[in-house]
Amino acid sequence: MAKKIAVVLSGCGVYDGAEIHESVITLLALDRQGAEVLICAPDVEQMHVINHLSGEQVAGETRNVLVESARIARGEISSISSVQAESVDGLILPGGFGAAKNLCDFAVKGADCEVNPEVARLVREVHAAGKPVAAICIAPALLAKVFGDESPELTIGNDTGTAEALESLGAKHIECSAREFVVDRKRKLITSPAYMSAGGLAELAEGIEKTVDALLELA
Amino acid sequence: MAKKIAVVLSGCGVYDGAEIHESVITLLALDRQGAEVLICAPDVEQMHVINHLSGEQVAGETRNVLVESARIARGEISSISSVQAESVDGLILPGGFGAAKNLCDFAVKGADCEVNPEVARLVREVHAAGKPVAAICIAPALLAKVFGDESPELTIGNDTGTAEALESLGAKHIECSAREFVVDRKRKLITSPAYMSAGGLAELAEGIEKTVDALLELA
Repeated sequence: MAKKIAVVLSGCGVYDGAEIHESVITLLALDRQGAEVLICAPDVEQMHVINHLSGEQVAGETRNVLVESARIARGEISSISSVQAESVDGLILPGGFGAAKNLCDFAVKGADCEVNPEVARLVREVHAAGKPVAAICIAPALLAKVFGDESPELTIGNDTGTAEALESLGAKHIECSAREFVVDRKRKLITSPAYMSAGGLAELAEGIEKTVDALLELA
Repeated sequence: MAKKIAVVLSGCGVYDGAEIHESVITLLALDRQGAEVLICAPDVEQMHVINHLSGEQVAGETRNVLVESARIARGEISSISSVQAESVDGLILPGGFGAAKNLCDFAVKGADCEVNPEVARLVREVHAAGKPVAAICIAPALLAKVFGDESPELTIGNDTGTAEALESLGAKHIECSAREFVVDRKRKLITSPAYMSAGGLAELAEGIEKTVDALLELA
């Protein structure tokens, strides 16, 4: 039986949504390992729209997280509110600012962030069912918020300010390179820095492939 | 000296822009082979905007091909009008409907299509300089239009209608699976079906990796 993994996207584009390279390499690694995927995203408006050429916010434009995530998913995507923990064997959150702007608001609130209720629900339910949860790039901040009371071991690479914010949420931060990952076996949480420190796609892919392997091993 | 390859994008999303999986896997394969990339796109409006969740056109919305392509490029992108053939060792066109809607209008005009003038200029100049040009998925239709008078050997997989349109443009169509590619060594043109026939990411990646290897070998 192929393992089925929920992939939670947060839009489409590093500055206002899911990081596209991280998302695709995650999907590729899962397919190469024979896993099935259930791609999902919250059906909410993005925090904002960033012009990725200029880097500036586009005044007055709105985009929907589920609709934009559907670009990465080629239309094969579900609203996260329809996804139940019993339908999957594990869950992974690619990064990009969308993970810290649309799935939670860590990008603007830091340690005072709140998590989208449906994202928090699914992540909690998967975890409570004893199934593994992986998060890459900045997405471990969301895990720190949701599971901070369990003092999980997580990584966002080696950025001191972000690491301190994760620790203030209750996590124990472990420094890690983009080619590696951190696994908290007790809590079945796997994290990897990805573009928090990766210098290119080959380096990025190495860390994500190892993360996906660890996720499937624990699933 | 690392070889430098122009990657020509056509937006961000399979139905109205560059196919995201094909684009990222192309960039990953190039990085893994130690190549440098120069990502570019035409600075023009998309033919239209498709909601990738519903599959329907979004009335009244416009998006710019260069700005949306910048999402895949993480902002590191140039207008194709600024790119000269002498700056690169080869060129590759990922697919997606954007290649047939924004780089040319093959998706609506078939064999009567016209190619964006700046895209046609760069592709012609790279070819005239004796450098290889690769195209995947539906993008070989653009090569058939530009190079039809040379009777190039190209593939778009095994879709009969599309293959006939390429032949009416002057190309010789070769059937090919998504895991393989066709190389016209005389004209230094490499083509592969990608999502014209691939059933998943692992299959997709195999064909694209082989295409990139052939491109770099000829570059």
